[in-house]
Amino acid sequence: MSPTLEHTLTRIRGRDRQVGDRARAHIDTLTKPPGSLGRLETLAIELAEIRSEAFPDVTPPGVLVFAADHGVAAEGVSAFPQEVTAQMVANFVSRGAAINVFARQIDARLEVIDVGVAAELSGDGVVHAKVRLGTGNIVESDAMTRDEAVQAIETGIGAAERMAEAGCRCLIVGEMGIANTTASSAVLAALTGREVSAVIGRGTGIAESRLAHKQAVIERAMEARQANTDDAMDVLCKLGGLEIAAMTGAYLGAAAHRLPVIVDGFIATVAALVTCRLCPAARDAMIFGHRSQEPGHGVALDTLRARPLLDLDLRLGEGTGAALAYPLLVSATRMLADMATFASAGIAGGEAR
Amino acid sequence: MSPTLEHTLTRIRGRDRQVGDRARAHIDTLTKPPGSLGRLETLAIELAEIRSEAFPDVTPPGVLVFAADHGVAAEGVSAFPQEVTAQMVANFVSRGAAINVFARQIDARLEVIDVGVAAELSGDGVVHAKVRLGTGNIVESDAMTRDEAVQAIETGIGAAERMAEAGCRCLIVGEMGIANTTASSAVLAALTGREVSAVIGRGTGIAESRLAHKQAVIERAMEARQANTDDAMDVLCKLGGLEIAAMTGAYLGAAAHRLPVIVDGFIATVAALVTCRLCPAARDAMIFGHRSQEPGHGVALDTLRARPLLDLDLRLGEGTGAALAYPLLVSATRMLADMATFASAGIAGGEAR
Repeated sequence: MSPTLEHTLTRIRGRDRQVGDRARAHIDTLTKPPGSLGRLETLAIELAEIRSEAFPDVTPPGVLVFAADHGVAAEGVSAFPQEVTAQMVANFVSRGAAINVFARQIDARLEVIDVGVAAELSGDGVVHAKVRLGTGNIVESDAMTRDEAVQAIETGIGAAERMAEAGCRCLIVGEMGIANTTASSAVLAALTGREVSAVIGRGTGIAESRLAHKQAVIERAMEARQANTDDAMDVLCKLGGLEIAAMTGAYLGAAAHRLPVIVDGFIATVAALVTCRLCPAARDAMIFGHRSQEPGHGVALDTLRARPLLDLDLRLGEGTGAALAYPLLVSATRMLADMATFASAGIAGGEAR
Repeated sequence: MSPTLEHTLTRIRGRDRQVGDRARAHIDTLTKPPGSLGRLETLAIELAEIRSEAFPDVTPPGVLVFAADHGVAAEGVSAFPQEVTAQMVANFVSRGAAINVFARQIDARLEVIDVGVAAELSGDGVVHAKVRLGTGNIVESDAMTRDEAVQAIETGIGAAERMAEAGCRCLIVGEMGIANTTASSAVLAALTGREVSAVIGRGTGIAESRLAHKQAVIERAMEARQANTDDAMDVLCKLGGLEIAAMTGAYLGAAAHRLPVIVDGFIATVAALVTCRLCPAARDAMIFGHRSQEPGHGVALDTLRARPLLDLDLRLGEGTGAALAYPLLVSATRMLADMATFASAGIAGGEAR
């Protein structure tokens, strides 16, 4: 383990339950029937616990989008050709993608990080942190070495730290990588022991008929790689992706800095599962943004005992579902900070129950 | 029927499907897998159809909160005393309530309208449009006369028109009225023919043991009033509330002005059902914000074939759930207007499916 990673892990402490209790007590004095704001109340308490502040602030948010390619794309598992990863990075830079639109809406700082796109990218607007030109094709070789995985994780840690240093108080972590639902399904099947058929889906939209092929590719890869399923790092190296590793690092970095991190869709949640296997306390910094259409997402969420805020049949990635959920975090914190209390407003209380 | 109401009804046209087709075609050119933004895509199309604009704008939003009292509060059906209605109106005016906080977050214009609070209110910050000092106790008398209901509906129409004239492009309609879940459950049972037990809940939080009493009160009221269940106006007058009538008017006014209106929780959805019985085409202007904890809400939503955007266990009212859903409408419209297309971004398309 590298010094950076080790240092980060030692800084992760989990939630501050005492501050949570103070937030909960305050919420019960606000001018509304007790409990009537439902999940917004529990969300406010969670944010207080993560930030260790009774009146947490989640503005401004930061968005990190990690891009990388997957050798397994050569097996024909995606509806889009591999060059779309680099093309979409260019689209992020010129601010035309969905995540750009939603990041603008929430006044987020946005960083796009090339952690392994299979093309030489240059120019401004991208953080150049390429570990290698895409992963190996997991049917034929390991996705990456341990050193490469650590390098990608450290890239994620560094990106989260830059956001914390820039004053961001909440993190949204997204990804782009053609064929990365295939890698994610393989990682998820390995870490949970579930059948591959239970954790795959149509990704960007492959034809129903191609699902069986995708399943066979993943099964071949798992058979060939023989990852140690008790070792999340081994699973990540043999079956994962560079952007998945970097997201893991970003979650760890967020947790170390007490930054609430909104987990996006399927790939992001698989990365969250890898993270929690490496460091269970990192789970405490995570808020789950949405439930995606990808069937494996439900498996990953259940494994993490996560109940997402939104359920809008999304399946885009990039951090979009997390960005869409972000205004609810703002609402939760403003409820805490800005509502009048029964006493301050001179309002009769309800009956004791 | 009054000339104002009649004029409003003749202006309601329903959705512009041709514009919706144009919006749908445009969405399929945007740089994302087709359909991958799920319900946000259908929401964008709905908003285009309601506004009759291929690139609709929903900013700024307007929030209307109608307040009124209910004579049936005397039967002990609420956890809070009746004076809380007037106290909460004062809280709205001094900006301490949840709806104030969420309205500020979304930069909304906010109006609080006294359409029937059982106390003389005075001063600025409230639109004074009191029809009477609360409804009659529906166990003993009709809630209101037909003339009073029409007056309250016209108040709602006028409020929606003021918002339209002030440049608002989306409407959020909320309410405050101690005991108004009781009136709403009575109206819902009458309009749907469902058992009272299937449409009641704990409202602001009455003890579980008091639910049977609430149910008996509603059953006595329905038996005594003998409303003509085929005539929504008769049901509204005999069992409803002044704020429910005003919300009906606001929905009609919104529909007449092609303003998308976000329907809030249980009471708001019962008012939406009354509206649609009076004018089925008004359904077309409605977007449903959230599914509340109140059991009757599900019945009302199903009756309207509505699938709300959020499900956060809220049960507050005031328009809060609708306000929390509003940023998703903004996201939908910005996706339409601001995303790059595959052609403009020079990105390879996916395979034909």
